[in-house]
Amino acid sequence: MNRPQPVERMVDIIKKLPGVGPKMAERLSYHILKMPQGEVERLIDAIQQARGKMKNCNICFNLSESDPCPVCADTAREHNIICVVETPQDLIAVSKAKDYKGLYFVLGGALSPLDAIGPDDIRIAQLIKRLKSGKITEVIIATDTDSKGETTALYLAELIKPMGITVTRLGYGLPVGGDIEYADELTISRAISGRKEM
Amino acid sequence: MNRPQPVERMVDIIKKLPGVGPKMAERLSYHILKMPQGEVERLIDAIQQARGKMKNCNICFNLSESDPCPVCADTAREHNIICVVETPQDLIAVSKAKDYKGLYFVLGGALSPLDAIGPDDIRIAQLIKRLKSGKITEVIIATDTDSKGETTALYLAELIKPMGITVTRLGYGLPVGGDIEYADELTISRAISGRKEM
Repeated sequence: MNRPQPVERMVDIIKKLPGVGPKMAERLSYHILKMPQGEVERLIDAIQQARGKMKNCNICFNLSESDPCPVCADTAREHNIICVVETPQDLIAVSKAKDYKGLYFVLGGALSPLDAIGPDDIRIAQLIKRLKSGKITEVIIATDTDSKGETTALYLAELIKPMGITVTRLGYGLPVGGDIEYADELTISRAISGRKEM
Repeated sequence: MNRPQPVERMVDIIKKLPGVGPKMAERLSYHILKMPQGEVERLIDAIQQARGKMKNCNICFNLSESDPCPVCADTAREHNIICVVETPQDLIAVSKAKDYKGLYFVLGGALSPLDAIGPDDIRIAQLIKRLKSGKITEVIIATDTDSKGETTALYLAELIKPMGITVTRLGYGLPVGGDIEYADELTISRAISGRKEM
């Protein structure tokens, strides 16, 4: 006997989510089947609401309910420094360090030749366009410290330095091979104050 | 800076799902925000369809698209033997062993005094009612082999044996402390042929 077709279909779709294997997908599916109707409606509503309300800021490409986002619209911030991160989650992690008063740019990923992710697959052209149009004096590269993030950082440095803009990389304090999103606030604070020119 | 409120709400709801921690919930939420609209619609439709179509069979309480389910409605099966399992997933695992031609009963969990789950919280009354009404000669108890499953098995045996029904427990082959759902088919086949009276 196999799972009934409607359950099979739900498991098939859920197991494609990141970090969810077949057993986890089965567990989640049977749990969802047993949940009170109100809870399922809240889950679906939360997904639909979030997708309906969140958009990319056209300046920094962070996810935001408004465009431009509150950070880009904040005239009290230093508009001549841009911190480049891979994902919106990384941006939130850096912002929690509080030492940083500049703006951001979300690449939407990192270069990864093995996964066939090249410069056209992340927002490198949009970043360069923004740097050309503004009065940017420094770009802090806060990509992950794994090989993809390092590759991306080196690529960006080569591209941006000839534009006469100072390019820095988050400095000591970051564990090598790690994921910026999971770094603690103190580590990120140290990395910001210890950033080095590339 | 914290996550925007719509994202926060989605993370909060997703992290309550079993086996999903806060980081996993965040990862899933941002993934869902990036998914193509068609994929999100398929995910939501699969959940709604499965919940709409699946019901409990009124005889065995397995999840099924029909009531009674195809197993209970199958006159070719041995209607005098019932295999008692904790969950629909366990039922599917036992059915894959193919040695078993009887019927089933899904308890909907196991006794767990530490979690305050007592006899009234699983379908023990419904099982006894079914045993009283039918011509059942044997009950095979296939609850998990962890402490909750063993407790439940002992409790059921005490309850059912005075009714003049043979009570057996899946026999050798099952690893102690394990979860029936994850056992391989051969192990379950051996456990069925080696079942012992309690």
